Amino acid sequence: MNIIDIIEKKRDGGVLNKEEIAYFIQGYTRGEIPDYQISALLMAIYFNGMNSEETVTLTEEIIKSGDTLDLEGIEGIIVDKHSSGGVGDKITIILGPIIAALGLKFGKMSGRSLGFTGGTIDKLESIDGFKTDLDYEDFLKLVDGIGISITGQTGHLTPADKKLYALRDVTATVDIIPLIASSIMSKKLAVRSDALVLDVKVGEGAFMQNLEEAEKLAEEMLKIAKSFNRNTRVVISNMDQPLGKAVGNSVEIEESLEALKGNWTSDIKEVVYTLATELLLMAGKAKDEEDGRKQIDQVIRSGKALSKFKEMVERQGGGSSFIGDGKLSQAKFNMEVLSNEEGYVTSLNARAIGKASVSLGAGREALDAKISHSAGIILHKKIGDFVEKGEVLAELRTDKEETLLEGERNVREAYSYDKEEPKKNKMILKVIG
Amino acid sequence: MNIIDIIEKKRDGGVLNKEEIAYFIQGYTRGEIPDYQISALLMAIYFNGMNSEETVTLTEEIIKSGDTLDLEGIEGIIVDKHSSGGVGDKITIILGPIIAALGLKFGKMSGRSLGFTGGTIDKLESIDGFKTDLDYEDFLKLVDGIGISITGQTGHLTPADKKLYALRDVTATVDIIPLIASSIMSKKLAVRSDALVLDVKVGEGAFMQNLEEAEKLAEEMLKIAKSFNRNTRVVISNMDQPLGKAVGNSVEIEESLEALKGNWTSDIKEVVYTLATELLLMAGKAKDEEDGRKQIDQVIRSGKALSKFKEMVERQGGGSSFIGDGKLSQAKFNMEVLSNEEGYVTSLNARAIGKASVSLGAGREALDAKISHSAGIILHKKIGDFVEKGEVLAELRTDKEETLLEGERNVREAYSYDKEEPKKNKMILKVIG
Repeated sequence: MNIIDIIEKKRDGGVLNKEEIAYFIQGYTRGEIPDYQISALLMAIYFNGMNSEETVTLTEEIIKSGDTLDLEGIEGIIVDKHSSGGVGDKITIILGPIIAALGLKFGKMSGRSLGFTGGTIDKLESIDGFKTDLDYEDFLKLVDGIGISITGQTGHLTPADKKLYALRDVTATVDIIPLIASSIMSKKLAVRSDALVLDVKVGEGAFMQNLEEAEKLAEEMLKIAKSFNRNTRVVISNMDQPLGKAVGNSVEIEESLEALKGNWTSDIKEVVYTLATELLLMAGKAKDEEDGRKQIDQVIRSGKALSKFKEMVERQGGGSSFIGDGKLSQAKFNMEVLSNEEGYVTSLNARAIGKASVSLGAGREALDAKISHSAGIILHKKIGDFVEKGEVLAELRTDKEETLLEGERNVREAYSYDKEEPKKNKMILKVIG
Repeated sequence: MNIIDIIEKKRDGGVLNKEEIAYFIQGYTRGEIPDYQISALLMAIYFNGMNSEETVTLTEEIIKSGDTLDLEGIEGIIVDKHSSGGVGDKITIILGPIIAALGLKFGKMSGRSLGFTGGTIDKLESIDGFKTDLDYEDFLKLVDGIGISITGQTGHLTPADKKLYALRDVTATVDIIPLIASSIMSKKLAVRSDALVLDVKVGEGAFMQNLEEAEKLAEEMLKIAKSFNRNTRVVISNMDQPLGKAVGNSVEIEESLEALKGNWTSDIKEVVYTLATELLLMAGKAKDEEDGRKQIDQVIRSGKALSKFKEMVERQGGGSSFIGDGKLSQAKFNMEVLSNEEGYVTSLNARAIGKASVSLGAGREALDAKISHSAGIILHKKIGDFVEKGEVLAELRTDKEETLLEGERNVREAYSYDKEEPKKNKMILKVIG
C-alpha cells in the first residue's frame, strides 16, 4: 500500500477501504507519513467527502491510535456530554452538578479555549487551586465517589485526532463534516459512557452556520454512535448570540454559580434543562420530559446541585476562600460600553464578542499563549432588549489597559438595532436520536 | 497576508491575485511556508483550477524565484525546444544537430530520467567523457561558436519549480494543466530564445492521455508565451507506442546516430521534420514547409548534421573512440523476447515498455538512484507489424541478470495482437500557435 495511491483514489472520488484508512491513520500517527501528504488527502476529502462507512472506519482507527478508558470500578450509570463549541458556553459547569445531584455519574474530560470559543478547563482554572490535570485513578475515584469530576484529558487518548486537528487548523480543512464527526466521536467513544448527549451549536457564534449543516453533522455522529452501540442523542441549539451574559473565565464561573442557585437567564436554563432531561431519559431515570424537568427543579431549589459543584471544587483542590463565600480574582481594569444608538437589539454577533473577549485576554490566539482568568465581557443587553442612547451595553474586564479601546469598539460593533422588536429565535432547534 | 486565507480562497473557488501568488511562491521558495500548506493549496487548485491570468502570474513568480539567463553575446537566432516527455524520446539529440547545421543556434538545457520516461542528459552521458555539467560561460561559448550545446541546467534557475515539482510528485497533484504549463514555461522563459517549439506528447506513454487534454495544455502554454512575447509553436504528437525502436540510454544514442545518417524509422523522422520545420519557419529561415523539409534532407544527405553532432560531442569532452568509429559500452546480458502469439500488433504499451526499461536498469525509480547506460530495450516489432509465433519481439539489455525474466514478461505483456491489420495513427496530431 502506498499513500500516493490513497490520495489519488480519494482525489478521483473513490471510496477508501478499511485497510487504506488504517494505513494512513496509523502511518501518520507513527510519523511515517508526512504532514504534506495528509494535508493533500484532507483537501481531497474536503472536495469528495467520505461516506458513512468510511467515517465510521476513520473513527475506529483514530480510537485505535491511542488508549481507551473503560472507567472500570465505577458503579451506576455514567453519562457524558459534548458541545461543538460556542461563545459563553458554560453548560458543562452547570449541567454536571445537576446530573450528579440526580444520581448519575458525570465524568467529563474537557478542553481549553482556542480561537473565538472558550474552554471549560480554562474557566474552571479561574478557581484558585482547582486541579484540571487529574490522573486516571483520581478521576475514577471522584466520579465513583461523589458522582462528578471535570478534568483535562487524562491518558494517551486519540493521538491521531490531535495530529489531524492541528494540521486541519492550518490547512483550511476544518469544515469537513465527516472529519468533524469522527474527531468528536473518537474522543467520546474512547471513554466509556452509558449515555451521551451531543450539543451541536448553530449560528454565527458556532462552527456550524446553518441548521442544514448541523443536521448533517448530527446524522453523521449518530451513525457512528449506532455502529459502536453508544446510546446517544443530539440536541441542536441556537448560537446566534452568546449564551447567557458572561463571556470569559471567572465571569462565566460566577454566572454558573448563579445559575446553580436558580438565578439564570432563560437561554442557559433552556439548554441545561434540555440536555439534562435527555440524559435522564436515556438513563431511565425519568419517566418523561415533564418528570425530568421536575427533578431538575428540585435539585436546584434544594441547593443540592450547588453543593455538588462545591464538593467537586473542594475535592479537586479549589481554594477554600471560594468554597466559603469568597470572590474570584478581579480584573485590574473595567470599562462600560455605552450605546450610541437607540432601538431594539436585533443581532449580537457571537463570533465578534468571542474575538473581543480573546483580545481582552480571556482566550488564546496561539496554542501556547497565556490567558487572563479575570478578563472577559458582561453583556447587559441581548437580542430583543430595548436600548436607549447612553445606556450600558456591556462591561469589559481586562488586565491590559491598552486593549480597552479596541474592545469597546468591537463590542459596540457587534450590536445591530432596529425600531421594531425582533422575533426571538428558539433556543432548542431540534432533538435527534 | 496569510497562507491559510489563500488556501481557503482557492478552496472556495476564488481567483488568486498577483500579491497572493507572489506571497505563496516566494514564501515557499524561502522555506517560510511549509510543504503541508502548499500541498493543501495544490490539491485545491486540482479541483478549482487556475485561470489564464493566474497561470501567467504563477509563471512570472516562478521565474522570479531564481536567476534568468539572457545568453548575452550569442549572435544569430537562438532556438529552443521542449518535450512533455515520453518513452524512447530521443528527438532533441537528432533535432539539435540538424538545426545547428542549418545555421540556427541550439542552446538546450535538458533533464534526467524520472519515472517511466527517459532523460536526454542520461542518454548523452552514455558517451564516455561527455560533460553535461557545463558552466554558463562554456555553454555560451559552444552555442555561439559551433551553434549547439546540450547540457544539464546551469545556474540557479526556477528553484520554486523544483520545490513545487518534487511536492506534486508525492501528493497526487501532478496532473494539473495550469501547473504543468507554468512549470514547463517558467523553465523555458528563464532562458532567452528567439523561437521555441513545444512537443506535447499524447497517449499511453505520455502524461497527457488524450488530445483534448493536450490541446488544453497547448493553449495554456501559448497564452503564457504570448504574454511574455516569446515566439512559440506547439506540436502535438502521438505517444501511443515508444518512439523509434530503442528505449534506454546508449541504445538511443546509437539509434540517433543512425537517424542522423538518414537511417530512421518513419515516426522519428516525422516528429524531427515537423519540429525542425516549425523552428525554421519561426526563425524566417524557410519560405514554407516544403522548403524547410528540403533543407533538412540536405544536411542529412551531406553528413553535415552528423558532423555537427560529433563536433558537439568532441567539444563537450566525449571519448575519441566514439568520435572515430568506436562503440558505446555494451550490456553484460542480452535476451531475446519471443512471441507466444501470432497476429498483427495492435498496441504496444509505451508506459509498460518505459517501466520495463527502468527495471532493467536504464532509468531511476528514485531521484538519487544510479542508472546503467547500456541497459535498455530494442523493439523489433511495433504497431502494424505482423508477428509469427516464436519470432523475436524485442531484445533486452541489462547488467543485472536477475531482472531479465521479469523484463521478458513485462515486454511480452506490453504487446496486443489481432488478426486484422490495425489502422495506423498519425504521428503529428496538430500544430498550434
